[in-house]
Amino acid sequence: MSDYTWSTSIAEVQDDDVIVRGYRLSDLVGEVTFIDAIFLVHTGDFPSPSKRAMLDAIFVSLIEHGISPSTIITRTLASCGTPSQAAIAGGLLSIADWHGGSGEQLSRVLADLVSAAQQSADFDEERLLARTREVVADYQADRRRFAGFGHPQHTEGDPRAVALLNLADKLGISGNHVRAARTLEAVIEESRGRRLPLNVTGALAALLQDLGFSWRAIRGLVIAARSAGLVAHVVEELDQGGRWRHAREDDVVYTGPRGRTL
Amino acid sequence: MSDYTWSTSIAEVQDDDVIVRGYRLSDLVGEVTFIDAIFLVHTGDFPSPSKRAMLDAIFVSLIEHGISPSTIITRTLASCGTPSQAAIAGGLLSIADWHGGSGEQLSRVLADLVSAAQQSADFDEERLLARTREVVADYQADRRRFAGFGHPQHTEGDPRAVALLNLADKLGISGNHVRAARTLEAVIEESRGRRLPLNVTGALAALLQDLGFSWRAIRGLVIAARSAGLVAHVVEELDQGGRWRHAREDDVVYTGPRGRTL
Amino acid sequence: MSDYTWSTSIAEVQDDDVIVRGYRLSDLVGEVTFIDAIFLVHTGDFPSPSKRAMLDAIFVSLIEHGISPSTIITRTLASCGTPSQAAIAGGLLSIADWHGGSGEQLSRVLADLVSAAQQSADFDEERLLARTREVVADYQADRRRFAGFGHPQHTEGDPRAVALLNLADKLGISGNHVRAARTLEAVIEESRGRRLPLNVTGALAALLQDLGFSWRAIRGLVIAARSAGLVAHVVEELDQGGRWRHAREDDVVYTGPRGRTL
Amino acid sequence: MSDYTWSTSIAEVQDDDVIVRGYRLSDLVGEVTFIDAIFLVHTGDFPSPSKRAMLDAIFVSLIEHGISPSTIITRTLASCGTPSQAAIAGGLLSIADWHGGSGEQLSRVLADLVSAAQQSADFDEERLLARTREVVADYQADRRRFAGFGHPQHTEGDPRAVALLNLADKLGISGNHVRAARTLEAVIEESRGRRLPLNVTGALAALLQDLGFSWRAIRGLVIAARSAGLVAHVVEELDQGGRWRHAREDDVVYTGPRGRTL
Repeated sequence: MSDYTWSTSIAEVQDDDVIVRGYRLSDLVGEVTFIDAIFLVHTGDFPSPSKRAMLDAIFVSLIEHGISPSTIITRTLASCGTPSQAAIAGGLLSIADWHGGSGEQLSRVLADLVSAAQQSADFDEERLLARTREVVADYQADRRRFAGFGHPQHTEGDPRAVALLNLADKLGISGNHVRAARTLEAVIEESRGRRLPLNVTGALAALLQDLGFSWRAIRGLVIAARSAGLVAHVVEELDQGGRWRHAREDDVVYTGPRGRTL
Repeated sequence: MSDYTWSTSIAEVQDDDVIVRGYRLSDLVGEVTFIDAIFLVHTGDFPSPSKRAMLDAIFVSLIEHGISPSTIITRTLASCGTPSQAAIAGGLLSIADWHGGSGEQLSRVLADLVSAAQQSADFDEERLLARTREVVADYQADRRRFAGFGHPQHTEGDPRAVALLNLADKLGISGNHVRAARTLEAVIEESRGRRLPLNVTGALAALLQDLGFSWRAIRGLVIAARSAGLVAHVVEELDQGGRWRHAREDDVVYTGPRGRTL
Repeated sequence: MSDYTWSTSIAEVQDDDVIVRGYRLSDLVGEVTFIDAIFLVHTGDFPSPSKRAMLDAIFVSLIEHGISPSTIITRTLASCGTPSQAAIAGGLLSIADWHGGSGEQLSRVLADLVSAAQQSADFDEERLLARTREVVADYQADRRRFAGFGHPQHTEGDPRAVALLNLADKLGISGNHVRAARTLEAVIEESRGRRLPLNVTGALAALLQDLGFSWRAIRGLVIAARSAGLVAHVVEELDQGGRWRHAREDDVVYTGPRGRTL
Repeated sequence: MSDYTWSTSIAEVQDDDVIVRGYRLSDLVGEVTFIDAIFLVHTGDFPSPSKRAMLDAIFVSLIEHGISPSTIITRTLASCGTPSQAAIAGGLLSIADWHGGSGEQLSRVLADLVSAAQQSADFDEERLLARTREVVADYQADRRRFAGFGHPQHTEGDPRAVALLNLADKLGISGNHVRAARTLEAVIEESRGRRLPLNVTGALAALLQDLGFSWRAIRGLVIAARSAGLVAHVVEELDQGGRWRHAREDDVVYTGPRGRTL
């Protein structure tokens, strides 16, 4: 099938309804929650009550982070008169490799580790450990560091990661990806000689996969959760009525030459 | 306060937590749903069970619409190797004046109508009707049309609008903005001589305001709901492995000159 | 022709070349300047030397404006690890109604004024004046203000506007759109009792149309010129190596409640 | 210097002018071309006539490519009523790893190769060859392929690459980065047993660095050149007046289930 055709198993628009993973959208409205619908769209099925509670918790944890890069960008854009879709889209572009979206790399590593451990019918802990040691050694050889571990402020552990992982244990959600993340945490400690605990980004990379989401969806789900918060910042910025957010004058330093002539 | 400062009542980042509208975010995780958190961030309070059900229904109705402009853009971007934040942001830019976001204009009109009818303590139906007639006359004089009414396919009424408005009546959510929208619908019919029923965009503009959201938030909330669906399209597109989505060759027609030389 | 087909007179991709407005792109490479190519793509023809010089001057005037909203956004995005296409796109979203792009509204007004004055074969100055007075009266009735006039700092006139308009006069470029802009400036002064001179945005709206560009292209051309400068800011930001640009802590004020419990 | 301050050597905004790399912007307007200004902003100096001609040629070669991913996105966005800054920004997001922007990876490889060859005072051809062989061997070990070489249609050589490299030779622009690119081309041929010639993306990665631009700027410069073409597509799309570009109905295939009930 060549690439001007669109093959999708997610949804089908019909004259009088939209089919989503086999259900009529109009049957779902009023019957299931938004979190249920996210599961349906992504995994093809509705969640158990525990899984629903876990994804609700994850999305709640991501909805707001005050004045941070994404809100700075969204509000600066709104203050320039760009419409809300552009202000929000601009802010979401910041959920990237070094900020918020850093779990994508780890998500893929965890997917690979779980896949290695599951080559036979059972989950093979020894194979997991062996493959994890290989991966850590490769990273060290290339002087790369793992995203998803450690936090500049929370050296004893990122409280959001701790809360989410505890909840996952309580709800019985923690599965092979959490196991792989814990193994990776242990091997990193072993190899560095000091503990570098999972941070919230790392916890999400494991938990969302144990909930059934693809590693490719992790960053996007962070974006979906955060977007609801950014909308409130657009409203507040426009209600405040300011124009053209710029930098504090004495925070700008020009280090180039002056006084050149043609 | 000048515009390099950031004044916000939404959230505050503290060393060990985020305060959202007065609550510690870590207290909310595991205790409230994502939809509750959206209410909190936007309105400062948690919803009643009816309001929660209504917003869940609205977000469910928006999560997916198959292969439409936003998904075409998001998947084309993903097929070019741009990361997920950019693919999703690009798709969201299409939720604009003529597509998905057209309720923004109506939202503001409804806010004005309700405000006109509420100048005294009570909601004044006659004042509402009088002001609505003025607005419709102004629009007709300028040959502008109202977004939020009518649908090319569903001449008897957009089924999503009908479903959402029925649910709102059942849940006791319908309030002054729905009343204003119904009045506007009636005055438009009166002035045009034929019925032009509220479509889903118009229903959202009324319902979301009756739920307590600002008219400025309407388009953004559509974006927040849709973003969760776009993530699934990024995953599916990348899993399919295609590159550089383009147009079908015989759908491209060059109408300019040929054979010019310098 | 329905809307999944693409009809264009701009360019045609052939197996071994691209036809641009009738010319083979490979014939143009090395023979014409980039500014010539912009004229060709937009107007279908190459410019006279005077027109080329004028567009070069306009693009030079727009290439850089130091640390302003667009650069703040682009550099903040780059500091979060988003790739350059997303950092640049994010910054360009700020060229909007209240910043940089405000000439779009004026561009359309000028197009309408010129069209009114040209209803007969000749350019009718009296008709221009009459129509301008109507437009100014309409704006005043609606309490709207004209973008493109006045500047908070440069009350005697925006030096960039003065320079560009003087150059246009010298090069013999000033035409009907500049005439319309001058008339509008005069009528605004007449109606307000004080002078509100054309600023750079207003000058561009007139000059670019006198060069043959559509009013719909004005904001986009500002974007095209500015994008070359934003690239340099991405490079500088990444070379500096900072991460996660945020706000100065004491510039952030939380004005909401604290201490609420579930 | 912490990261809420802005240190830049590119430009400084003063009350009555903008200083760009030491020059007053108002002195440049009318005196230098846009291509000159791009050199100034990026390299701190004006180009020789040969360098100016080369960058003009490069930008001309990039301005248009008909109905391709970037124009499909930009026009689809414009057809949804999003403003031009958002339509253009959305299209630019497609200049990414697999489309248009693929030279970024090669640009960095070439920068490393040149740096390896220049460790002593002279450019050391043998060191270049040795380092190139190492890099190619590393890529083969990781089964990665080099962007910038080969083209599905033009097996004898991408005509745009040939034209630009010939022009560079004629103008005396080709330098160490072109040399490194040629060496890489030869080593790839040696290792694969067949020729995989530089394509236009690869030629740009070499030529722009030989012109003095940073490897980090390559993708951004492609974006800057292309943006001028996208503006014309916004204008044409809006002039055509279509709404909501979507897919041809029979190009959409739903492969998921139907008929599920709650």
